[in-house]
Amino acid sequence: MHSSDVIINSIFKDIAFTKPEVSFMENTFERVILTKGEIVLKAGERVTDQYYVYDGCLRTFFIDKAGKEHTIQFAIQDWWISDYIAFFTGEKAVLNIECIQNAILYKISKKNIEKTYDRIPKVERFFRKKMEKSFASFQKRILANLAQSAKERYVNFISTYPNIEQHIKNYHIASYLGITTESLSRIRKELTTS
Amino acid sequence: MHSSDVIINSIFKDIAFTKPEVSFMENTFERVILTKGEIVLKAGERVTDQYYVYDGCLRTFFIDKAGKEHTIQFAIQDWWISDYIAFFTGEKAVLNIECIQNAILYKISKKNIEKTYDRIPKVERFFRKKMEKSFASFQKRILANLAQSAKERYVNFISTYPNIEQHIKNYHIASYLGITTESLSRIRKELTTS
Repeated sequence: MHSSDVIINSIFKDIAFTKPEVSFMENTFERVILTKGEIVLKAGERVTDQYYVYDGCLRTFFIDKAGKEHTIQFAIQDWWISDYIAFFTGEKAVLNIECIQNAILYKISKKNIEKTYDRIPKVERFFRKKMEKSFASFQKRILANLAQSAKERYVNFISTYPNIEQHIKNYHIASYLGITTESLSRIRKELTTS
Repeated sequence: MHSSDVIINSIFKDIAFTKPEVSFMENTFERVILTKGEIVLKAGERVTDQYYVYDGCLRTFFIDKAGKEHTIQFAIQDWWISDYIAFFTGEKAVLNIECIQNAILYKISKKNIEKTYDRIPKVERFFRKKMEKSFASFQKRILANLAQSAKERYVNFISTYPNIEQHIKNYHIASYLGITTESLSRIRKELTTS
């Protein structure tokens, strides 16, 4: 196990913290060990935390009225994951989070993150910028669905989540791309033979 | 025309500014007057500003490869609008912004907003929270498209944008909801007769 300042510096890469700041931050995060298949969050629950993925892989998914699963996001090393609608608004979760590859997470509660903002403004700036990037990349993905073919989306997916493919099931990838597993196989075949 | 402190206070409702702060902020915003039909931003352009809608109505739209328009967002009084992918990442705009009802905007450049963050941290907090809300509501809309009927989405639309309907064209609303104008008419009829 790494010492906690290594973890704090891994989470907030470009920020230079003082020693008292690191000590303060250490107490705001909690380590969570998960094994493949574990559910971290269920739709309907209250969401008090967001999770930093130190290692492993998770996905958020949504179950529609017909019972069909839609994969909304994958989170790999150095990504953050939560049901952000619920986390930000205080409403109950509509998403589920599942561990799909053994994972080590560091979670921080909303209360602790707000305390940190008051005490260390550069952390607020860090999250403000992170939020902007997430918003941009989420909107990008929606526009890609309107503008790109399934093949182009698959190529983008591989570049966004490098090395993720060998660890996750085909139907999760297909669900994320909004296509069937049959289409996914066809696209892969096209790409390897072209 | 209102004095500039009225405008600053209208933009940042819940923040108490000192007089020097208001003076500083006044110089960061620029007033923009638009008439219906004007294009504020075209896909392919650089995006240096975001816009606060003081009055009137705008929409952002995306044109897909087949030339079809997709309305992504409407912005009415007290909303912010831009191509946020381009604004945050520095890439060229993929969206277009059109004034669909005579409008008064106040625009602020990325450079000025960053200066303001350094000088007045409560403005950075304001935008951090605004970003969180935007992210949550955008994600909510995507999930609604998966979970709700067109009728439910229309009802949500009316509650999100009260009084907007009489000012915008049916095909813009239909495009925003991802349905045809015929379906929109049918839904309206169903709601008035039920």
